[in-house]
Amino acid sequence: MHSLAELTRLFAARFDVNHFPEKPATLYDPNRYFLQLGGKRIRPLLVLMGNELVDDIKEDAWHAAFAIELFHNFTLIHDDIMDAAALRRGMQTVHHKYGQNTAILAGDVMLVKAYDYLNLLHRDVSRPVVALFNKTAAEVCEGQQLDIDFEQQPNVQLEEYIEMIRLKTSVLIAAALKMGAIIGGAGKGNQEHLYAFGENLGIAFQVQDDYLDAFGDPEKFGKEVGGDIRQNKKTFLAIHTRDVASEAQRQQLQTLMQENPADKVQQVLSIMKACGVDEWALQLKQQYFDKAMQHLDAVAVMSSRKQQLFDLANFLIARDH
Amino acid sequence: MHSLAELTRLFAARFDVNHFPEKPATLYDPNRYFLQLGGKRIRPLLVLMGNELVDDIKEDAWHAAFAIELFHNFTLIHDDIMDAAALRRGMQTVHHKYGQNTAILAGDVMLVKAYDYLNLLHRDVSRPVVALFNKTAAEVCEGQQLDIDFEQQPNVQLEEYIEMIRLKTSVLIAAALKMGAIIGGAGKGNQEHLYAFGENLGIAFQVQDDYLDAFGDPEKFGKEVGGDIRQNKKTFLAIHTRDVASEAQRQQLQTLMQENPADKVQQVLSIMKACGVDEWALQLKQQYFDKAMQHLDAVAVMSSRKQQLFDLANFLIARDH
Repeated sequence: MHSLAELTRLFAARFDVNHFPEKPATLYDPNRYFLQLGGKRIRPLLVLMGNELVDDIKEDAWHAAFAIELFHNFTLIHDDIMDAAALRRGMQTVHHKYGQNTAILAGDVMLVKAYDYLNLLHRDVSRPVVALFNKTAAEVCEGQQLDIDFEQQPNVQLEEYIEMIRLKTSVLIAAALKMGAIIGGAGKGNQEHLYAFGENLGIAFQVQDDYLDAFGDPEKFGKEVGGDIRQNKKTFLAIHTRDVASEAQRQQLQTLMQENPADKVQQVLSIMKACGVDEWALQLKQQYFDKAMQHLDAVAVMSSRKQQLFDLANFLIARDH
Repeated sequence: MHSLAELTRLFAARFDVNHFPEKPATLYDPNRYFLQLGGKRIRPLLVLMGNELVDDIKEDAWHAAFAIELFHNFTLIHDDIMDAAALRRGMQTVHHKYGQNTAILAGDVMLVKAYDYLNLLHRDVSRPVVALFNKTAAEVCEGQQLDIDFEQQPNVQLEEYIEMIRLKTSVLIAAALKMGAIIGGAGKGNQEHLYAFGENLGIAFQVQDDYLDAFGDPEKFGKEVGGDIRQNKKTFLAIHTRDVASEAQRQQLQTLMQENPADKVQQVLSIMKACGVDEWALQLKQQYFDKAMQHLDAVAVMSSRKQQLFDLANFLIARDH
C-alpha cells in the first residue's frame, strides 16, 4: 500500500502529460491550460485508494482515475460558465480567458476524453464501472441543475438542499471509491459500504465548507470569511437559520439580504450565533462524519488496509481552511 | 433488408420513448422537448444501413443508432447556444426556452445518455465502436471550434474550410455507417470504404447546402435564398468567389459586406455568377459525390445490398430544397 503522499506523486507523474492533440490549438490549449491549474485531485486518489483497499493497484484503476479527474475538470469548466465565475484556483476561468463558446466545447471534449480512458478498461470491469460513471455523471448534472433552480426558489427545504449537495458533490466521491473497489475486486457489500462512506463524507465536507465560510478563522481560512453571506447564497447555515429564526430575526435577515449594508456579514453572523446555528452545523457535520465512519468500519477488510481512508477522512473534515 | 421508409418507421417506434428520468423536470423536460422536435434522423439510419449491408440488423445496431442520434442532438443544443440561434426546426431552441445554463446541462446529460446506450454493446464490438465514437465526438468539437475561429479569420483557405466541414459534418455520417458495419461484422476493407463513402458524401451534401442557399429555387427551397450572403457567412461559394474574383469585384464584395445595402444578395449573386461560382459549386459537389460512389462501389458485398445506400445518397444530393 502507498501513503497518500506517494499516491499523489504517482498520480501526478502519470496524469501530468499532454492528454490532447496539438491542433486545433484554439480548442485544446484551453484544456491544457485548465488541467495545469492543478487542484487537490482528491477524487482520482479515491479511485486508487478504493482499489488498494482490496488489492494492489491495477492498471484499470489508473484509467478510471484519469477519467474521474477529467470528468471533474469538465464539470468545473462548465460550472464556471454557469456561475459567471472569473477566477478558478486564483487564475482566469476558461470562458473568461478564451470565450464562452470555446469553454463549452473545451468542456465537451474533456468529457469525451474521460470516456476515452474508460474505453481502455478490461472487459470484466468495463460495464459496471462505465454504468456507475454514467449514472454519476447524470446525477452531477442533476445536482447542478437543482442548484440553479434553488437560486430562484425562496423556500428551499433542508432535505432538498442536502439532496442537491449529495448529487452535486457526494456521488462523485462515492463513485470514485466504488469504481476503485470494483476494479480491485471487492465484493458487492464492500462496494456499497464504501459508496455510502463517500456519500456521507461528501455531505460532511460540504457542511464543513459552509461552516468555515461563515465561522472560519480568517487567518487560517486564507480568504475573507462571509463570502456566502455577502452573496445571499443558500447554504446549510442560511437554510437552517431561516428555519429556526424568530419572526423578528427572519425579517431582519430579509432586510439585510435586500439592502446589503456594509456590516451585513457581522449582523447575519450574530443572528446565526444567537440561533445556535454554528453549533448545529458542527453537530450536523459530525453526524454525517459518524455515519461515514460506520460504513467504513463495516467494510470487511483488515483494519490496516482502511487506515489510509480513515486518515484522509479525518484530514478532510478536521481542516480549518 | 428494409426499405428506407421501413427503417425510419422502425427507428421511430423504438426511439420515441422517454430516455430520461422524470425528475428533476427542470433538467430533463428540456431534453424531452428537444428530442420531440424530431429532425431527419439520417444518422441513426446510417448505422442500421451499415449493419444491413453485411447482415441482419443486430440488437447492438439499435444501441449505436440511439447513441448517434443522442450525440447529434447534444451537438445541436450546444451549437445553438454558440450560434445564439433562437429557432431550430421552426421551434424555440433549448437555451431560448429554458435559459443558457440549463441548455449547457441538458446537452451534457444528453451526451452522457448516449454513452449509456453504448455501454449496452456486446463485448466483441464495444471497444472499436466506442473508440470510433470518441474519436468522432472529439472531431465534431474540433470542427465546431474551427468554425468559430473562421468567423474572425479574414482569409480562410478552401482546403481549411473543407477540413472544417469534414470534421463538423462528414465524420459523424462516416462513423455512423462504419459503426453499423463493425456491428454487422464487415471486414476492415469494407469498413474503410464505407467510412470514405460517408466522408465524401457529407462534403458533397454541404456543398449542395451552400449552393441551394444562394442559387436554390425560392419556391422549392422553402425559405428565402441568400441567408448566408446576408450574414456574410463563409461558405464554399463565398470562399471560392473571393479566390477567383477580380480586384474590382473583390473590392465590390468588401463594400457590400460592410455596408449591407438592400440589394446586397442580388449584387453578390451576380458577381458569383459572373465568376462562374454556381457552375464551379455543382462540379465540386459532383466531384465529392463521384468519390463517394467509387468507395461505395468498392464495398465488397452484393450490389443489391448496396442499392439502399445508392438511393439514399442520390436522394440527399439530388434534393433541391
